[in-house]
Amino acid sequence: MDKVTLSKPYLLDSSDLTKEDLYKIFHRADFFMQNFKVGNKFDDLKGFIVALAFFEDSTRTKLSFELAAKSLSAEIFSFQAKSSSLSKGESILDTFKTIEAMGVNIYVVRHGSSGIPLFLQNNTDGSVINAGDGKHEHPTQGLLDAFTIIRKLGRIEGMKICIVGDILHSRVARSNIQILNTLGAEVALCAPGTLLPFYPKEWNVKIIDNLDDAIEWAEVVMALRLQRERMESGLLPTMREFSNYYGINIEHFRRKPDLVLMHPGPVNYGLELDYLVNEYSNVMIQTQVTHGVFVRMALLSLIGKTMNKEKNAFANLFDM
Amino acid sequence: MDKVTLSKPYLLDSSDLTKEDLYKIFHRADFFMQNFKVGNKFDDLKGFIVALAFFEDSTRTKLSFELAAKSLSAEIFSFQAKSSSLSKGESILDTFKTIEAMGVNIYVVRHGSSGIPLFLQNNTDGSVINAGDGKHEHPTQGLLDAFTIIRKLGRIEGMKICIVGDILHSRVARSNIQILNTLGAEVALCAPGTLLPFYPKEWNVKIIDNLDDAIEWAEVVMALRLQRERMESGLLPTMREFSNYYGINIEHFRRKPDLVLMHPGPVNYGLELDYLVNEYSNVMIQTQVTHGVFVRMALLSLIGKTMNKEKNAFANLFDM
Amino acid sequence: MDKVTLSKPYLLDSSDLTKEDLYKIFHRADFFMQNFKVGNKFDDLKGFIVALAFFEDSTRTKLSFELAAKSLSAEIFSFQAKSSSLSKGESILDTFKTIEAMGVNIYVVRHGSSGIPLFLQNNTDGSVINAGDGKHEHPTQGLLDAFTIIRKLGRIEGMKICIVGDILHSRVARSNIQILNTLGAEVALCAPGTLLPFYPKEWNVKIIDNLDDAIEWAEVVMALRLQRERMESGLLPTMREFSNYYGINIEHFRRKPDLVLMHPGPVNYGLELDYLVNEYSNVMIQTQVTHGVFVRMALLSLIGKTMNKEKNAFANLFDM
Repeated sequence: MDKVTLSKPYLLDSSDLTKEDLYKIFHRADFFMQNFKVGNKFDDLKGFIVALAFFEDSTRTKLSFELAAKSLSAEIFSFQAKSSSLSKGESILDTFKTIEAMGVNIYVVRHGSSGIPLFLQNNTDGSVINAGDGKHEHPTQGLLDAFTIIRKLGRIEGMKICIVGDILHSRVARSNIQILNTLGAEVALCAPGTLLPFYPKEWNVKIIDNLDDAIEWAEVVMALRLQRERMESGLLPTMREFSNYYGINIEHFRRKPDLVLMHPGPVNYGLELDYLVNEYSNVMIQTQVTHGVFVRMALLSLIGKTMNKEKNAFANLFDM
Repeated sequence: MDKVTLSKPYLLDSSDLTKEDLYKIFHRADFFMQNFKVGNKFDDLKGFIVALAFFEDSTRTKLSFELAAKSLSAEIFSFQAKSSSLSKGESILDTFKTIEAMGVNIYVVRHGSSGIPLFLQNNTDGSVINAGDGKHEHPTQGLLDAFTIIRKLGRIEGMKICIVGDILHSRVARSNIQILNTLGAEVALCAPGTLLPFYPKEWNVKIIDNLDDAIEWAEVVMALRLQRERMESGLLPTMREFSNYYGINIEHFRRKPDLVLMHPGPVNYGLELDYLVNEYSNVMIQTQVTHGVFVRMALLSLIGKTMNKEKNAFANLFDM
Repeated sequence: MDKVTLSKPYLLDSSDLTKEDLYKIFHRADFFMQNFKVGNKFDDLKGFIVALAFFEDSTRTKLSFELAAKSLSAEIFSFQAKSSSLSKGESILDTFKTIEAMGVNIYVVRHGSSGIPLFLQNNTDGSVINAGDGKHEHPTQGLLDAFTIIRKLGRIEGMKICIVGDILHSRVARSNIQILNTLGAEVALCAPGTLLPFYPKEWNVKIIDNLDDAIEWAEVVMALRLQRERMESGLLPTMREFSNYYGINIEHFRRKPDLVLMHPGPVNYGLELDYLVNEYSNVMIQTQVTHGVFVRMALLSLIGKTMNKEKNAFANLFDM
C-alpha cells in the first residue's frame, strides 16, 4: 500500500497545507465517514500518544479530537491548564518537555495566545496541531468547513462564499479565508467597518457592505460567533444594531431558500442567527460538527504517517 | 435469544418504570452481579456513545455510571459544566445538539434544575437517563435501593419501609416513594413538620411522627442526607435538635438489632446517623454503592436494547 | 513462574521498602523498559481498579501513574478533589469507602496533609500508594531517582550524592535520603541553615555548607524545587541571594563536566538551576520523567502480585 503523506508533519496555520494536502485529507475523511462504526477502531495511530492540551475552555473541539484520536487507537493524555502544574508556575514548555518524556508525540493545542503552537513545534521532536490559538488561526475548523461545502455542493473551486460578522477577531475567519483561497473559491467578507481587518486586499477577498447584497451574491454564507466582549470595547454600538444589520434571519431564507448557511458554533441565537433558521435543511451547523470528527481523524492519520519516520522522543530516551 | 426491552427507551422519572420493567432491571442486575469481572467487558453497549453530563458535582453517581457504561463496552464522553463551552454562554440544548452530532445516543444527565432531563429528551433522538435533577427525582438511586432490599430481605412486596429526614427537599425520597409503591411496599415518612411535603396523602404514604415509633414499625429504615443549607433557611432550629429527634444511633440498634438501615450517601455522621451504627451488619450503605454499579449496568443495557430500533443520530447525518 | 512479591502490599513511606524490594522493583522496571510499546498492554493489573485520587494539582505524577496503570491493563478511576463530593463536605474516608464499594483495590493518593495515605491504608482492605503527602514523603520519586542513578552510573552503593536546596520542606528529599541510605549510597545535604532539617545526624547524612565544595565532592547532585512561598515566611532573605549561593549554573558544569544533575521538576529556572545547564547531557531531568513511568509500572505490578492473595473488597460484597 502506498503511504500517503502531507507536506509537513504538523499543522500550525492553514498555509501549511497545499491544495494537494487538502484533498488528501478530504479523501481520507470520506473513507473514515464511509467505514466508521462506534466501538470499532482503526489502527492508524496505534502506538502514538496524543496529548489534548487545552488551555482554553472547549466542548466541541476537545471532544471531537478525543473521539477522533480514540477511534484511531491512540493513547490519550488529556489535561486542562487549571488542574495541571501550570498553577505552580511551571512554564508551558516545561509541561511539554515533561509529557514528551512520557512518550507523547502528537500535541493538540488550544491556547489564548497566538503563536503558542508554533513556539511548541519549534521545541519538540513531535508534531503540534493547532486547535485554536488566540486570534491567529483555527485550521481544523477551516478544514471541516471546506469539507462540508464539498460534500454539500459537490465542489468548492469557483464557489462564492461570504463570511459574515466579526472578521477582525476571528481565528476561524483567518483559517477559512486561507483554505478557501487555496482551494480556488471566491471569498467575500461582510461586517461592520470596525470588525473588518485593516488590509483585506492582502487577503484576496472582496468586501460586501450590505448583508442583503452578500446573501444575494453568495452560494454559501458562513456566520461567525460574535464575542460579547467586543461590545464593551466600543467596537459595536449595541447588540441590537449588530443583529439588525448583520444577523441572518428567516426573511433571508424566504428570499433565498437554497442558501447554504454555516456557523462554527456555539451560536449566539438572536444575535448572529435567528433560531428559526434551523428549520431549513441547508443550515449545516450540526453537520459541520459531525464532519469535524472525520476531518480530524483524517488529519491525525496523515500526520501520523508523515511523522512516522521521525524519531520518537520516547525511543530516544531508551538509548541513553 | 429473546430481546428484553423496557416500556420506554429513557428514564426521566420513576413513573416511567412499570413493575414489570423494574423486575426486568433487577433480573439483569443479578445476572451482571453473578458474572462481572473487572476488566472483562460485556458488549451490551458496543457501538453506543454515552455522554456523562454532570452539571453538579458528584463522586459516587458519576463513577458508578462510568464504570457501568465502560463495563458494557460503551464509548464515553465525560464532561463537567465548568470546563465546557457552557462558560461561554452556550445553552444546554446547543451542547446536546453538538454532542449528538458527534454520535452520542445515551445521555446521563445530572442538573441542579428540575426538568432539564425531560427538556433534553424532548429535543433529542437519543435517550436521556436522569441522574438527579434539582429536587425532582433521582430514579437510579430508587432502583438501587429497591434492589438492595430485595437482595437483603428476599422480597419487597408488603415490606414496611420508613424514610426518615428531609423528605421535602429530597429527590431520592421522591424516587424511592414512587418505586416502592410500584413494587407494593408499605411506605411511611418520619420528619419534622417543616421538612415534610405538603400533601403526603397523594403520595400514598403514612406519616409517623416519632422516630422510635417509626423504627419499631419498620423493617427497613432509609435515612436521607440533610442539606446543611436547610438550617440557614430557617426550616430547622438547630442541627443538634434535628440529630436528637431524627438522628439514628446505636440505641436504636440495641433495641432492634435486625433493623435494616440504608442511606444514599454521603452521610453527615453525627447528624442523620451516629458513626457507630456502622458496626451493625444490616447497615447497607456500602452495599448500596456496589449494587448501584450493577443496577446501572442493567438499566443501560435494557435502554440500549429498547432504543436499538430507533434511528441513530450519527447515522442520520451520514445520509445527507 | 515464580511470583515475585514485596515485603508489604502498599507503599506509604520509603521505609516500607527493603533493599531487596528496591532491586525487585528496579529489575521489573528494566523489564518493562525493554519491552514497552505504546498501545501494547501487559496484563499485570488486569482485573484491578486503580483510583488516582489527587487532592493537590499535579501534571507529571498523575499522568505518569495513569500511563503506568493503563499499560498494565488496569481500570482507572480518576478524580480531583474539587469536582468530587468532597465539596459537599464528604470526608475523605467516606469517599474511599464509596470507591472501595465500587471495586477499587489500589489507591494512588496525593494530599496536602502528611499522613493521609497511612490513615487510608489503616481503613481499607486495598492497597494505598503514597504519591506525595504534605511535607512527609513522595516515595515513588525516590524510587525513580535511584533507578535513574543506577541506569546512568551502573551502581548506587558507595556513590556520593548531594541534595541541594530546600531540604526542610521537601517530601522528595525525605524519600530520597531514606532510599539512598537503604541502597548504601553516601548522602550529603547542602542548604541555607534555615532550610535544613533540625537533626540531620539522625538521618545519616553529612552537611556541606558550600555549594562549590558540594559539587566537588558529589558524583550526583539532586537539586530541589524551591517553594516560592518560603520567601514570604522569612526563611530566605531574597530569591537572588538563594540563587547566588545555591543555584546551579553553567560555571559548575565547566568545572565538572561529568556532573550528573537531577531535579524532580517542575524547575524554577533562574532560581535552582540556570536554564543553560540543559545543554549538558548529564542533566537527567527528562530521563527522570521517562523512568518514572517504568518504575511506577513496576511498583504497581509488584503490589498487585503482593496483594493478590488478600480479599477483594468487591468480591466480599457479593457474598452477603
